[in-house]
Amino acid sequence: MKTIDLNADMGESFGSWTMGLDTMLLEYVSSANIACGWHAGDPTHMAATMHAAALANVAIGAHPGYPDLAGFGRRSMAFTEAETYGAVLYQIGAARIFAQASGSALTHVKAHGALYSDASVDPARARGIARAVKAAGENLYLLGLPGCELEKAAAKLEIPYAREFFADRAYDGQGRLLARSNPGALIHDADLAVRRTIAALETGFVDSICGAPVAVAFDTICLHGDNPQAVQFAQALRRGLESAGFAVAPFHHGASPIR
Amino acid sequence: MKTIDLNADMGESFGSWTMGLDTMLLEYVSSANIACGWHAGDPTHMAATMHAAALANVAIGAHPGYPDLAGFGRRSMAFTEAETYGAVLYQIGAARIFAQASGSALTHVKAHGALYSDASVDPARARGIARAVKAAGENLYLLGLPGCELEKAAAKLEIPYAREFFADRAYDGQGRLLARSNPGALIHDADLAVRRTIAALETGFVDSICGAPVAVAFDTICLHGDNPQAVQFAQALRRGLESAGFAVAPFHHGASPIR
Amino acid sequence: MKTIDLNADMGESFGSWTMGLDTMLLEYVSSANIACGWHAGDPTHMAATMHAAALANVAIGAHPGYPDLAGFGRRSMAFTEAETYGAVLYQIGAARIFAQASGSALTHVKAHGALYSDASVDPARARGIARAVKAAGENLYLLGLPGCELEKAAAKLEIPYAREFFADRAYDGQGRLLARSNPGALIHDADLAVRRTIAALETGFVDSICGAPVAVAFDTICLHGDNPQAVQFAQALRRGLESAGFAVAPFHHGASPIR
Amino acid sequence: MKTIDLNADMGESFGSWTMGLDTMLLEYVSSANIACGWHAGDPTHMAATMHAAALANVAIGAHPGYPDLAGFGRRSMAFTEAETYGAVLYQIGAARIFAQASGSALTHVKAHGALYSDASVDPARARGIARAVKAAGENLYLLGLPGCELEKAAAKLEIPYAREFFADRAYDGQGRLLARSNPGALIHDADLAVRRTIAALETGFVDSICGAPVAVAFDTICLHGDNPQAVQFAQALRRGLESAGFAVAPFHHGASPIR
Repeated sequence: MKTIDLNADMGESFGSWTMGLDTMLLEYVSSANIACGWHAGDPTHMAATMHAAALANVAIGAHPGYPDLAGFGRRSMAFTEAETYGAVLYQIGAARIFAQASGSALTHVKAHGALYSDASVDPARARGIARAVKAAGENLYLLGLPGCELEKAAAKLEIPYAREFFADRAYDGQGRLLARSNPGALIHDADLAVRRTIAALETGFVDSICGAPVAVAFDTICLHGDNPQAVQFAQALRRGLESAGFAVAPFHHGASPIR
Repeated sequence: MKTIDLNADMGESFGSWTMGLDTMLLEYVSSANIACGWHAGDPTHMAATMHAAALANVAIGAHPGYPDLAGFGRRSMAFTEAETYGAVLYQIGAARIFAQASGSALTHVKAHGALYSDASVDPARARGIARAVKAAGENLYLLGLPGCELEKAAAKLEIPYAREFFADRAYDGQGRLLARSNPGALIHDADLAVRRTIAALETGFVDSICGAPVAVAFDTICLHGDNPQAVQFAQALRRGLESAGFAVAPFHHGASPIR
Repeated sequence: MKTIDLNADMGESFGSWTMGLDTMLLEYVSSANIACGWHAGDPTHMAATMHAAALANVAIGAHPGYPDLAGFGRRSMAFTEAETYGAVLYQIGAARIFAQASGSALTHVKAHGALYSDASVDPARARGIARAVKAAGENLYLLGLPGCELEKAAAKLEIPYAREFFADRAYDGQGRLLARSNPGALIHDADLAVRRTIAALETGFVDSICGAPVAVAFDTICLHGDNPQAVQFAQALRRGLESAGFAVAPFHHGASPIR
Repeated sequence: MKTIDLNADMGESFGSWTMGLDTMLLEYVSSANIACGWHAGDPTHMAATMHAAALANVAIGAHPGYPDLAGFGRRSMAFTEAETYGAVLYQIGAARIFAQASGSALTHVKAHGALYSDASVDPARARGIARAVKAAGENLYLLGLPGCELEKAAAKLEIPYAREFFADRAYDGQGRLLARSNPGALIHDADLAVRRTIAALETGFVDSICGAPVAVAFDTICLHGDNPQAVQFAQALRRGLESAGFAVAPFHHGASPIR
């Protein structure tokens, strides 16, 4: 049976402030990227989210970000390779011990927000992240965009890399995500998004914004869970995938990457 | 041959701010308690200090504190057991991964400043720390005062516990540390301090402030390294111990606790 | 016409995290205590909340807390008088400039959470707050419990002090708030709470938990705004007070304190 | 008599960590830019530094930076205009109240580190800073490089602007600072630096790196105080200026800008 992974960010509450609908989302995803306290999250929420993920049999990943709570890790910071390495290794270490304490184990790492974007285009930060994942050992997967600097850095260090597909985003003629500022960049029709995703899985192609099909390669589908519509979308996507004969399961368990 | 451990806090620089004479102190101690970023330290300094400790063959411990950089972890915070557990587990996780990345391994945990003091007398925070050390696994030692709430909590969870002796402090008639505010609480004469320590190791007794000998039980001697005099003191103590026939070695490597 | 002040805490969102129903609450209160970035709040939310308060003609106060975002300022921290002074003066300075930039002015200071509680019983922290308010100048009012250490410290420095009444809390036979842990400490019946408040305003007495009336002296009524019920309660209280012939207005504008 | 201002950054200690030789430097400068707690400094150090500056009759400025203690404000952060405005206004408010409590008053604002550099070239951040200084009122001066985006933003809002000269740096043929990475960018010979500075004051020209004189316009000279050599340099410069007939005095007190 063909399998595919659905991943989502979680554990982004902080102290007395709540964010996200983690409990609802855990029903639909196979991998959770859990905030580590630098851009969001704290030990209490990490413990609770990891515990819930372990109970739901969802794979647990570290979701490290820049040290910027007020900016939610969405503001780029001029980190060197060494600073990136240290920041990511630190957060992986914290995430790993909570995963272990929840009776589970850490399986992957996905950078958050501006760190994710920066590492896609900046070789230094890409290397910093990849070196941290390598130093962490235990064959952690690294998640990111296909074909970007982060994938190159992962390849160089022989780190397993899981490429993300965005079900609710348009792609340009080169198979790259269309920037959000462009008209048509966001796909608001859930049925259309589900159909596109299934087609991409079955054929390896998706209709680009220009109309022509373009090749897309991915191992996991990124979901959002910060509003009720996003949760409904997650549910629709999971049901659609299962109806089409795909099992939703973590990418690292025998998932054969789509190329 | 008889052995004894010397431990000191390290890695307490932060960002562009320097503190401590870690490099000099590493020549004399057998165990280093390395700050984890909450009261002091950051990934860059953690990595550098762990690397230096590993090279010097010094045992590496986590040194977790309250989340209070401005107060250097010296201001008590009203943490619950759960908050203490989360804070300590988080910091152990971060410390462990840097110890591993330096080619070494984490051997122990010593709470810092106000967290250390609070856990000596508050059963809830003592349990929080002990539960975190237990959850971390790998038989980490917990360091603390002899006979305090933290030792009780460690005993209940069957965590190995290393009791501290303070070479430069006076003891009262019950074998407890005399509070710093009392006259004579601090021993400024290094020779006297060294003689007292050796006597304590050889006889199990130290002269109390009242004059009468009092029993002291310990597995490790706490040193300070924040000023040049402290480093000279560390050197004098190490030389004195070795001249008296004691090998300085981590408490967890065959050190037979003094009772 | 008799007047009374209604105050509530606001501006306690932080970065991407939302808290409170400030906009709805501004319709009912006459004074807003606005978080200053240490336990909650940030420049963006301070600016927005002050602007909304100024538009609603609500008096603006600084709401300083301990530097503990993760604990929302609800965990006591062992601050000295000097540390308290510095923390409160800093936060007043930040609040004042945003009040000024919103075209309004700062009128009062109310400590938050654990700092409020600590200053009620600890003379050192009470003095630290009072000295900061004095140093800030411009005759700022200080809000707090009646008869506590903070009121004494304010009196000594001749700072105007506004005493708080809690409409939804029971009082003991000495006129002190009954601790939340006691049965009957919280009054859930809004009508009853409104009647008690009006009676307290008109007679200077409230029925204590033992049944006998006890004298209560206050200048302002504390409201909460963190859930929809709290907002309904605020509305009920405001309407009840107005029906009973009281104008709701800031305590510093000709409000004659109830004794 | 001709006057010129010497300014230096101060108050950059944080909690238990010390930085800078503020006390020694206060003997030589006429303006101090005092850190406000975001990249360095805290209420205790702000109060002490402002008090010392007031006693030394040195003009007090706010020295706001990015919220990045671990990076000492030297890492660029992707702030919007609104975020910059809020960050700078907040820090000015805090600085102003401490200046007032020290019996002095705030006279100017100089951004720190990466915020200073970013605002030199980014119109959005330049406007954010200028708008904050404008909102603060009281005719605060803004310090910065000559001819940069920050000066343009200040001009548009009619904020008085003081242009900086760097005594120990080489200038290129267009009168801009030569980047530190270029050979010859730093002038290590104190006598030469003093002679260049006096010549620049007297003639309005300085020898560029290419040899040809280039026009430089400035109102204040920037000094560093983080090492003993820097303090000696400050002393040499002050003595040299006074020997050449210049009075060292704050730029806002009748200093006639050099053009």
